Amino acid sequence: MAIGVTISRLWVRPRAPPTLVSPAASSDIVKSGIDVHVPAAELEDLIGRCLVAAGASPDHAPLVAKVLVAADRRGIPSHGVNRAEFYCAELQANLIDGAATPVLAQDGPATAVVDARNGLGAVAADFAVKVAIRKARETGVAVVCVHHSNHYGIAGYWADLALQERLIGFSFTNTSPFMVPTRAKSRAAGTNPIACYCPAGADSFQLDMATTTVPVGKVEVCHRKRQKIPFGWGLNSRGLPTDDPEEVFDNGGLLPVGGTEDTAGYKGYGLAMLVEILTAVLPGDAAVGPDVQPWTCTRTQPLNYGHCFIVLDPARFCGSAFESRLADYLQKMRGLTPSGERLPVLVPGDVERAEECLAATHGVRLNRDVAAGVKRLAERLNIHGLPAALQALDTHTVVEHTGVTAK
Amino acid sequence: MAIGVTISRLWVRPRAPPTLVSPAASSDIVKSGIDVHVPAAELEDLIGRCLVAAGASPDHAPLVAKVLVAADRRGIPSHGVNRAEFYCAELQANLIDGAATPVLAQDGPATAVVDARNGLGAVAADFAVKVAIRKARETGVAVVCVHHSNHYGIAGYWADLALQERLIGFSFTNTSPFMVPTRAKSRAAGTNPIACYCPAGADSFQLDMATTTVPVGKVEVCHRKRQKIPFGWGLNSRGLPTDDPEEVFDNGGLLPVGGTEDTAGYKGYGLAMLVEILTAVLPGDAAVGPDVQPWTCTRTQPLNYGHCFIVLDPARFCGSAFESRLADYLQKMRGLTPSGERLPVLVPGDVERAEECLAATHGVRLNRDVAAGVKRLAERLNIHGLPAALQALDTHTVVEHTGVTAK
Repeated sequence: MAIGVTISRLWVRPRAPPTLVSPAASSDIVKSGIDVHVPAAELEDLIGRCLVAAGASPDHAPLVAKVLVAADRRGIPSHGVNRAEFYCAELQANLIDGAATPVLAQDGPATAVVDARNGLGAVAADFAVKVAIRKARETGVAVVCVHHSNHYGIAGYWADLALQERLIGFSFTNTSPFMVPTRAKSRAAGTNPIACYCPAGADSFQLDMATTTVPVGKVEVCHRKRQKIPFGWGLNSRGLPTDDPEEVFDNGGLLPVGGTEDTAGYKGYGLAMLVEILTAVLPGDAAVGPDVQPWTCTRTQPLNYGHCFIVLDPARFCGSAFESRLADYLQKMRGLTPSGERLPVLVPGDVERAEECLAATHGVRLNRDVAAGVKRLAERLNIHGLPAALQALDTHTVVEHTGVTAK
Repeated sequence: MAIGVTISRLWVRPRAPPTLVSPAASSDIVKSGIDVHVPAAELEDLIGRCLVAAGASPDHAPLVAKVLVAADRRGIPSHGVNRAEFYCAELQANLIDGAATPVLAQDGPATAVVDARNGLGAVAADFAVKVAIRKARETGVAVVCVHHSNHYGIAGYWADLALQERLIGFSFTNTSPFMVPTRAKSRAAGTNPIACYCPAGADSFQLDMATTTVPVGKVEVCHRKRQKIPFGWGLNSRGLPTDDPEEVFDNGGLLPVGGTEDTAGYKGYGLAMLVEILTAVLPGDAAVGPDVQPWTCTRTQPLNYGHCFIVLDPARFCGSAFESRLADYLQKMRGLTPSGERLPVLVPGDVERAEECLAATHGVRLNRDVAAGVKRLAERLNIHGLPAALQALDTHTVVEHTGVTAK
């Protein structure tokens, strides 16, 4: 396995995870030939044109493309451009209104509910976070919920909008059921992520985690690469642990963080319920928990996902001291004596920042199968002027997109 | 093992957890003779008098006693009256100012910082949550942080104050380092709990979880009972898994929820850092992470714990629909088909509510060793008029309190 492939897996690799690669070693990634590297701007432009061709408004498509590419830039390919094909399929099937603009359904001094009107999730999230930022500047804290929405990409992208304003941002969303709750026989909760970003001068805290042991996308990427998954990620249809991603998709499901009941998996299940309450029960009118439809193109009704964003102004609490206090804390944790020689103690966001630096230098790293899927999508949609790295790619030598989510 | 002992362990019992006992079976608990049952009001009165004798203000002691007894009532003996001896020791050593009243240090439309002035943690928490409730009624959401505080009892007690006002309450606190962060060699984070209570008519959602696999107190109770702990809870001083509670206390530590790195323990570690940021970085002037002193009576400086409370008014989002929507969701989850025949699917709070019902009928259930510790404490402080169940207890037949936290 190429060094580059392992970076984004730093926290999830079973048994013996590798160290972060040094800048000196990073050029090996480009030479490895296993992945395809595409400049971010070119990739965003391509995905944006695909989305427009599939039915998204030209006003909305660039944002959605940016959110998808951001995931790949940060080494989270599960939520990256591999989703573009499915987004396009939803648009072409008129399951999502690619031109819908969100509106305020409730509005208070520090709270709001946004109706996404079955538009693109990223468009509603962008609108809602900006409302929350504006209100938090006035009152110190704001909570904005969204209903009638769709998939909004990586949760962290929306927390990052607050971070860029030197605010603390939280981002939550419900998703289609994929988690098997503690003691239950089958799926009844989403992977329901929790993201929180906090500014710390040039540094920052960037937590973005599914409340399952891993997000669906990581199983999907293994499935696409025909790799086994570690035990502890998922269950088969009989509720037994499995290392076969196919079994997880075939009426199995994911375990909550904490795993089984004897290792406190009920905590991950409890956190998933908390996210469901904030994102789907609270705004009203969103589909809740087991009632959320599977994320497939065979659905006949809107998904009706819900999101929740919380923005806090740290200046209201400790003036200008917050960022330096947090920077000190982050450095203190990174400086802890590690239990092993090769593995430094990290803080949330370190792995993704390292991947972003590599992407800025070498271009966004895509697995060849994912890159081939994007190329085929563009060809199907009659998009021309592909980035050079994709033009050069021979799609006949890579496996066809298995399209798990589109089943 | 008596049935009663197992109720509060329902979620944490390794391998094969027992079912919830039926009301018909509950009388066996009283007959079992293993535990001591004391009416809540009598126990609160006794603990309150002990705290006053040790130096707490008569204005503050009843609240602190109520919070400790509430933990035992809910089947969380780790945070119950077994803490009374240590609270009294801190008061007698003048490590806590038992008469201090909290004050507002920062005050905004929807935010505040409370200075606990090294007083009793429960007193500061009560003050802060009430400020948050008042502000949330005005703006829809409020965040109140506390610094210069001490141990505040079970996190859920403070979320419950919001619930009683038909509001959503969050409660967080940092604590002395006991978690070994992912990849680190030794303790550098607290058990940093997350609590969230939400009203649902006659029902409610009651999440209250340490971000370690288990809280320190559960290991402590096993230590006191001379029981092994399940593997997966803690590490020894060499960073290796152990089933010996003594090894966890002897320079070992607790694992974050998720366990080791290969099962996503970094998520529990990330959540613990998030709690540390909200409770200790954000208010300013609180001790942070690895700098928080151990909770012992040998300390020379105030602990300087921090707390954070968030209160949300659900009516601002979906009017009066929230509680019925949540009640439906809770019932739907409880109604899921279980994977096994004997174990129903639960939601956060179900176990604790069942224990509360038993306590209301039979009195608060205390382990005999804990009850003997309370009796000895009262005797040492020259408190007379003990509850009958404690008067009848022969303290010579039970083991001496090992006083782990007081070392």
